[in-house]
Amino acid sequence: MNNELTQSELLELVTLANRPNANPRVQKITARIVGDLFRAIDELDIQPDEFWAGVDWLSRLASSGQAGLITAGLGFDRLLDIRLDEADERAGRNAGTPRAIEGPLYIAGAPLSKYEARVDEEGDEKRGETMVMEGRVLDVKGNPVANAVVDVWHANELGRYSHFDPDQAEYALRRKIETDAQGRYRFRSFLPPGYAIPPNSPTSELFSAIGRHGNRPAHIHFLVVAPGLRTLTTQVNVPGDSFIDDDFAFATRDGLILTLEKNTSPKGYESLGVNEPFTRVPFDFVMQPAVDEGEAAPQARVAKALALA
Amino acid sequence: MNNELTQSELLELVTLANRPNANPRVQKITARIVGDLFRAIDELDIQPDEFWAGVDWLSRLASSGQAGLITAGLGFDRLLDIRLDEADERAGRNAGTPRAIEGPLYIAGAPLSKYEARVDEEGDEKRGETMVMEGRVLDVKGNPVANAVVDVWHANELGRYSHFDPDQAEYALRRKIETDAQGRYRFRSFLPPGYAIPPNSPTSELFSAIGRHGNRPAHIHFLVVAPGLRTLTTQVNVPGDSFIDDDFAFATRDGLILTLEKNTSPKGYESLGVNEPFTRVPFDFVMQPAVDEGEAAPQARVAKALALA
Repeated sequence: MNNELTQSELLELVTLANRPNANPRVQKITARIVGDLFRAIDELDIQPDEFWAGVDWLSRLASSGQAGLITAGLGFDRLLDIRLDEADERAGRNAGTPRAIEGPLYIAGAPLSKYEARVDEEGDEKRGETMVMEGRVLDVKGNPVANAVVDVWHANELGRYSHFDPDQAEYALRRKIETDAQGRYRFRSFLPPGYAIPPNSPTSELFSAIGRHGNRPAHIHFLVVAPGLRTLTTQVNVPGDSFIDDDFAFATRDGLILTLEKNTSPKGYESLGVNEPFTRVPFDFVMQPAVDEGEAAPQARVAKALALA
Repeated sequence: MNNELTQSELLELVTLANRPNANPRVQKITARIVGDLFRAIDELDIQPDEFWAGVDWLSRLASSGQAGLITAGLGFDRLLDIRLDEADERAGRNAGTPRAIEGPLYIAGAPLSKYEARVDEEGDEKRGETMVMEGRVLDVKGNPVANAVVDVWHANELGRYSHFDPDQAEYALRRKIETDAQGRYRFRSFLPPGYAIPPNSPTSELFSAIGRHGNRPAHIHFLVVAPGLRTLTTQVNVPGDSFIDDDFAFATRDGLILTLEKNTSPKGYESLGVNEPFTRVPFDFVMQPAVDEGEAAPQARVAKALALA
């Protein structure tokens, strides 16, 4: 047999469709991505040392657990949201709180409270501006949703997340709050700061090379789950951050920038340990009805992705 | 500011050229690859759970050290060789021993001998068919090349390579042999078997899904370095392997399939411990002149790639 091949003969051998026992969808996606890369290598005249530098970078990136960081920084997470928004628009399902990217730092299993919770710890007053975020979970018709679970997570004063940061307690700054009969939730914490991608990491290496910064504006993550409603993954921004319109992860969205009510009286907030004027942050989550069980399942992206394997 | 974006507005923000301090080459390659992936996601209607399954797979792949295995299996290593061959053809430099892929299993620093070496160990007779491979290193004009270094590595009887296999000694089945004044080298070892990619690994997962096998035919790797000549990376195949024309890594090449001279008399091979009829494997390496120092540098792909960082 002749083992000498042209580029196109090789590509055909690599990606040949209709092999017995193949998964046609995986085959199709693989063929597309490999074909695009073959053409990019040829058209950009990518040299072996460039190719192997790329493979080495990708290996270091993934081994550092930064694959989910680079997808956000290169816009893929936001792209998926834009495409979901477009599908919603076509289906007339675009009302309600905008979705925003989950990011790679969600951890399931945070402690659950009814109606209210303290997300920070006793004595955390000095870590940042004391705030109580509160509001209701509503459906798109404006009806309050009882027993919705608001799963919240945010960074500490150094911009780090528990579980990924060995210096923090398990589930620090992560809580779940179940709404009461009127659909209400509230929690106390401190306003987190913005933060940047780790320096001297594979992610920062690429971002330096393409001339981009790695800053994220201050934000708070939410995953809201309720029976019969479509799970809402979103994040809200703290106003006034200088990177709010220039987020590394392109996650800022109109309609998700908080309003801060400074110097709110502590009256009525004593059960959260608030005894002096604080920053009140009102916010309602408005959720679409689910069209099937999958949409209402309390699963974050990792759980969904692993379920395919 | 409006933070609502279309797909194309997002892509422009992600990949914007001409940022201060950017490396234009990295910027250009990144923009091409990210743009191709954005279009693939849109045109194949890739869903979030599919995207995150892919990211999860890529993370597991790289963390398992299999990035260099999947590049071979998806044809990238051979593609780079085809492109180098095409460049050689245009430059009239296509004479000599064909190049073949290095693969991810080269380790620098193997023990060096003059003229001859035993690559296997004393007492290894039962691991496979005893062979002596021998020949000369020549330039393209047919002149013998003294002091060329033939760096050889091959798998053991289980298809595993030292350094990556904790059960083998350091540099087992890896040796460097320096040619004598007549350009001659020879070494004793056993004919290695073919082998397959690890089962239950990220690589085998993808290959099952696209309906491809993961077998490599029996082969022996070489990196040949000589002053003033272009470093030759190649591999030779043991004839008769059922996967010789259907290599997982597409590395088989015409001109690199060995001839086995069975039942050769041991006379003259006593210094290699050969005392009974054995399989002689004649092979000459023919090398191009180097056009610059880089071409003659004794570097494998990893060393070259890391030098970019």
